[in-house]
Amino acid sequence: MEETGLNRIGAFTDGVFAIAITLLVLSLDVPRGDHEITRRVLEQWPDLLTYFLSFAVVGRFWIVHHRFFATLRRFDARLVQLNMLFLAFIVLVPYTTQLLGDHADDTVAPVVYATVLGLAGLCNLAMIRYALAGGHVRDEDRATTEPFAGRAALVIPVVFFASIPVAVLSPHVSEAMWAILFFAWPARRRRLQRTVEASDTTSS
Amino acid sequence: MEETGLNRIGAFTDGVFAIAITLLVLSLDVPRGDHEITRRVLEQWPDLLTYFLSFAVVGRFWIVHHRFFATLRRFDARLVQLNMLFLAFIVLVPYTTQLLGDHADDTVAPVVYATVLGLAGLCNLAMIRYALAGGHVRDEDRATTEPFAGRAALVIPVVFFASIPVAVLSPHVSEAMWAILFFAWPARRRRLQRTVEASDTTSS
Amino acid sequence: MEETGLNRIGAFTDGVFAIAITLLVLSLDVPRGDHEITRRVLEQWPDLLTYFLSFAVVGRFWIVHHRFFATLRRFDARLVQLNMLFLAFIVLVPYTTQLLGDHADDTVAPVVYATVLGLAGLCNLAMIRYALAGGHVRDEDRATTEPFAGRAALVIPVVFFASIPVAVLSPHVSEAMWAILFFAWPARRRRLQRTVEASDTTSS
Amino acid sequence: MEETGLNRIGAFTDGVFAIAITLLVLSLDVPRGDHEITRRVLEQWPDLLTYFLSFAVVGRFWIVHHRFFATLRRFDARLVQLNMLFLAFIVLVPYTTQLLGDHADDTVAPVVYATVLGLAGLCNLAMIRYALAGGHVRDEDRATTEPFAGRAALVIPVVFFASIPVAVLSPHVSEAMWAILFFAWPARRRRLQRTVEASDTTSS
Repeated sequence: MEETGLNRIGAFTDGVFAIAITLLVLSLDVPRGDHEITRRVLEQWPDLLTYFLSFAVVGRFWIVHHRFFATLRRFDARLVQLNMLFLAFIVLVPYTTQLLGDHADDTVAPVVYATVLGLAGLCNLAMIRYALAGGHVRDEDRATTEPFAGRAALVIPVVFFASIPVAVLSPHVSEAMWAILFFAWPARRRRLQRTVEASDTTSS
Repeated sequence: MEETGLNRIGAFTDGVFAIAITLLVLSLDVPRGDHEITRRVLEQWPDLLTYFLSFAVVGRFWIVHHRFFATLRRFDARLVQLNMLFLAFIVLVPYTTQLLGDHADDTVAPVVYATVLGLAGLCNLAMIRYALAGGHVRDEDRATTEPFAGRAALVIPVVFFASIPVAVLSPHVSEAMWAILFFAWPARRRRLQRTVEASDTTSS
Repeated sequence: MEETGLNRIGAFTDGVFAIAITLLVLSLDVPRGDHEITRRVLEQWPDLLTYFLSFAVVGRFWIVHHRFFATLRRFDARLVQLNMLFLAFIVLVPYTTQLLGDHADDTVAPVVYATVLGLAGLCNLAMIRYALAGGHVRDEDRATTEPFAGRAALVIPVVFFASIPVAVLSPHVSEAMWAILFFAWPARRRRLQRTVEASDTTSS
Repeated sequence: MEETGLNRIGAFTDGVFAIAITLLVLSLDVPRGDHEITRRVLEQWPDLLTYFLSFAVVGRFWIVHHRFFATLRRFDARLVQLNMLFLAFIVLVPYTTQLLGDHADDTVAPVVYATVLGLAGLCNLAMIRYALAGGHVRDEDRATTEPFAGRAALVIPVVFFASIPVAVLSPHVSEAMWAILFFAWPARRRRLQRTVEASDTTSS
């Protein structure tokens, strides 16, 4: 029963992530009316950048979650609750993305965006640390999971929260901070890849 | 074949829950136009409270459903039908949430919200009782499932239906009743947790 | 690989059904502005009836599809193609539902609704017959699947197509025809239930 | 763990495809107001054509993806990343479909449509070639997968990119090119079918 339970929670979480990431498309509005369609479509390029940024951020959260979940041997009610709170912030991302796309020059848009994603990052961290502390992670997988709970994992929430006061001074600098975090992905990827290869060796 | 059938009904139900909970984000409207964005975003805090309330309510219904479904050994056509009716009410929640967010001061919004969620609670209860009475629950799991069909399980529909006349007098008091039900979750959680630990001991 | 393939096609189909059925909620519009909210919400009761009708129709198509799919031992490219065409009509249901809810008095709304659902019924029938004729259904499950391809299975498309000329004379009579089909569900359910019990005996 | 990982990535991808294909229905707008509903619904036939075209295109990408994924024995971080980028283009299809449905006569609509789908095709090709080059495909399935990475697989992106300059001269000719690609499906189907039968023989 536990195994089924874990699978269904994983499947439910995957479903919520898949829908939240797909609803990001709703942040792109098709221009109404018939005049100057070309100009109005081309002016949407900042919306498109925001779309790709949010896709990368939500996608990255999903990858971390799916790696983490694969190492669980059991769960308890608090873990389910932390997972639900985490998902409640992820589901807000289509809203914050549309807000940022439509009002990138207003301070409030990047502040709300950074707050929601910073809180999502903290929830994620809390969930992984709780699972490690409570012995919910299989012993042979602790080495795989611990990096996601360590100092490096703080980078995402720290950058998002640090970008809040920056947004008050300049919304565009805060957006550049997230873009750097996004372009820093390749570097993280290499570390992640080494982890995958290590676990590959273990499991075969 | 039965096993596959149960899995697919579970997966379909998870899918509907995952989508319904994610569509809650559509209850938050991004302000249009360019004036006073900050004020208009900040004025959305009641919508955000409603969002988190609905997320918690739908999330809780899903958790109960997934625990219940894990104890089934078979199903019949009536159980599928009850499940469909239950889902038809769950799918209405994004609508009732947006109605409540946009018109919290009108009596009609909390009345509709409470009616839909009270009926969802009754359907859920009817489904669990039917499964227990018809012997669809595995014998070793009856002890896990019975609490979800007992007197305590009546709390959710009773509170929702009781809040309907209250909403006529004061919409905000009825909303406070649901918030208390929501904050009472931690207490329920502990009971649920004991159940999980018990079943954990059984299955290992 | 075939087994995985079947599972993924089933999962994809479940996903599309789950989303299409959940998007039905978008046919209910939250009234904008602040005047006479109560009256305007109460005036939505025909939309709510249409919502429950479509939920029942899509839910019934899903139940038939999931029973049918459980009896397949293999598939081929044409079956996948028929399944896709079937899904293309199912995905149109949220649109036809909103059209019917908003314009129930216009002939065009029930005509479009009946056309789309009649075509969905025909596709479904074509898919089941093709699978039976091509030997894709497991021999021991032919008895379970054949009723879904027989004369009784023609009832759904025939009623929908017959309601098209009726809608030209009176939209409301055609809607009543579908409601009767919907309330006739209990009778069908009993037949389905006997089938489930029969297959239950076989598989245990 | 690897097996679970592959299954969850497959399930997540299926989820995103299922949602993106279902959101295509949002490109059909229900006419507002009460005058000349019939005429305005009937005038939506180009939107309906675009809907079926996009359904076929996204459906075809999904079928290729699901056949490809069934042949993987492992994955690495770069493959996940390529898959995410591919999904980011697929998720844009409901937007490009609505743009094309609303503004079929403007050059910009078919240009955007062709660009997004051409890039999706390239991503798909890059993913399959990377998996083959890196030895991620099971040896016994290389023969099944290689056609999807070969010269024939270039047809989809080449036709979409070639239709971009054509759209500048005449939007409708470019749309006809995609329709031909769509009606050419039967021919491809036969080749795919032979592949399925071949793999059927292998696996049984």
